[in-house]
Amino acid sequence: MTAGTERLGARIAYLGPEGTFTHEAVRRWTAAGGAEPPERSDAALEPEPLATVREVHDAVASGAAGRGVVAIESSVEGYVVPSLDALVGSPDVVAVDEVVLDISFDAFVRPGHADPSRLREASAHPHGLAQCTRFVAEHGLLPVPASSNAAACRDLADHQVAFGPRLCGELYDLETLATGVEDFAGARTRFLVLCRRDGAPVAWAPRRASGTGPWRTMVAVTPVVTGPGVLARVTAEFAERGVNMSSLVERPLKVRERQYVFVVTLDGAPWEPQVRDLFGALLGAGDSLKVLGAFPVAADGPGLDGVLPDHAPTGSVRRDDGGADLARGLLW
Amino acid sequence: MTAGTERLGARIAYLGPEGTFTHEAVRRWTAAGGAEPPERSDAALEPEPLATVREVHDAVASGAAGRGVVAIESSVEGYVVPSLDALVGSPDVVAVDEVVLDISFDAFVRPGHADPSRLREASAHPHGLAQCTRFVAEHGLLPVPASSNAAACRDLADHQVAFGPRLCGELYDLETLATGVEDFAGARTRFLVLCRRDGAPVAWAPRRASGTGPWRTMVAVTPVVTGPGVLARVTAEFAERGVNMSSLVERPLKVRERQYVFVVTLDGAPWEPQVRDLFGALLGAGDSLKVLGAFPVAADGPGLDGVLPDHAPTGSVRRDDGGADLARGLLW
Repeated sequence: MTAGTERLGARIAYLGPEGTFTHEAVRRWTAAGGAEPPERSDAALEPEPLATVREVHDAVASGAAGRGVVAIESSVEGYVVPSLDALVGSPDVVAVDEVVLDISFDAFVRPGHADPSRLREASAHPHGLAQCTRFVAEHGLLPVPASSNAAACRDLADHQVAFGPRLCGELYDLETLATGVEDFAGARTRFLVLCRRDGAPVAWAPRRASGTGPWRTMVAVTPVVTGPGVLARVTAEFAERGVNMSSLVERPLKVRERQYVFVVTLDGAPWEPQVRDLFGALLGAGDSLKVLGAFPVAADGPGLDGVLPDHAPTGSVRRDDGGADLARGLLW
Repeated sequence: MTAGTERLGARIAYLGPEGTFTHEAVRRWTAAGGAEPPERSDAALEPEPLATVREVHDAVASGAAGRGVVAIESSVEGYVVPSLDALVGSPDVVAVDEVVLDISFDAFVRPGHADPSRLREASAHPHGLAQCTRFVAEHGLLPVPASSNAAACRDLADHQVAFGPRLCGELYDLETLATGVEDFAGARTRFLVLCRRDGAPVAWAPRRASGTGPWRTMVAVTPVVTGPGVLARVTAEFAERGVNMSSLVERPLKVRERQYVFVVTLDGAPWEPQVRDLFGALLGAGDSLKVLGAFPVAADGPGLDGVLPDHAPTGSVRRDDGGADLARGLLW
């Protein structure tokens, strides 16, 4: 397949409304040049907010949108499972890039309404309110839930403060009362850039040609049988070839009780020899495989930092601990 | 340790307000006799709503509450990662039981306000609104977000419909307009019953004595080194002993980049011989271990059904597929 054979829609579909963190991820990706694959270097793709992850997938699958952007993983909440399930279940959509964003909230007011004595309410999605409790308490505000942080900013009243991404100030002509008002800094979210499966080789071509890397690949592995040992067999195939799993998540299959599909993110590209060899071995054992995406590791970091503070969780025991500690840690 | 040595608080802490699905899980567990461990068979534990998962943990750790109940896993959203991280990070709290609930929404109105021509708004947590979109559309209602489904029911106005668990109708003296109004039936959520680590043996004693089972154990495994092969080594130890992993989830550690703690749910109890042998082998290899909980498998099901409809996800390829299909499925 060569550049120019694909007729992609001129839009990037994302989970709206305008001003979501996903919208910010779209802007970041566009600014980095991601939105100008060779087949349409003459025009920028236009962001288009949609109401659900399902609609984003459908727009990409039908070709109505050339790209789609969805959140896939958060350092606080883990995988965004509905996004993951949509990708695992889709025959026509794959991930061709990733964007990692720091999740930080600014506090906005309507222009000229920053007088603290007149501000009485704080509005955001319940998750946003839960992440900015200190600011709400310090300012004596009443929390008022909104359907999204972006909607809270868009619909802001004179007596309200809204919490949202920096982008919302510009989009909705708001005054910034304070920046970085989240209780705990450092949360990050990873987004995937989606493309039609047929278009992935074209989307990857310039970066394959330029040697950009290292790459990561997401693959769904559905083992042919289940029970003790199945994950050991699959992980041994990775280990024998020195292919690192950077992430593993399992999702239950509806039709067969206690059967799972494993979604593995591995270090390498699908076309690299050790990955091809690995896939061949898994296929040879009878497993079903589906590559869900591949992309160079995001320039702004190796992924998501954890939130667990210790080397090993407090209360863990090790080999040389005494009998009483072992009994307490292991509940023997 | 013998029954009667523990002075447990007389309360069950849970994520409130009254009328949440977690509250329903508390009631289910109490009705099944779970709230009457031998040391206090003379009194039922009193449910106490708290504002955050952190407060529930703190209440259990301090002994202010004898038990705590938190959601841990949903068939739609996967693991409730903040609940999981709190359990992994806590030195003093373990899970001693589980409850699995069908997640179904009823539509409530204020008594005498069921006239459809006067109902204009639908109120629930944004997640609840997202799960009842068909009912909202069919009744021509305007969605109004609330901080929780329970709060929507509690604060219901005459022109509103609220969505929530069945329990809310009784708690807030509401009239039930319709039952089971969720778009997709079959969602389930699993809850853990928490207890002080010191009190776990007493909590388990009657069921150990009566031979209730089979049991499951949650254990956090922090490998001593990371990189290719670490998960293969851990899973091989399970496979060699025929210990089935019913679930595996990994959480990143904050202090060491790309190092993970694996939270495994396994079939068996910590004191059973093959599990003791497994833990011994992992400790011998240098891993840190911490048992996070153990409980008989819930009577109402073996866990959560999946939402992925196929045996293997659509678009997966297998050994005998042709070259073009393989190339498309694997993006070689």
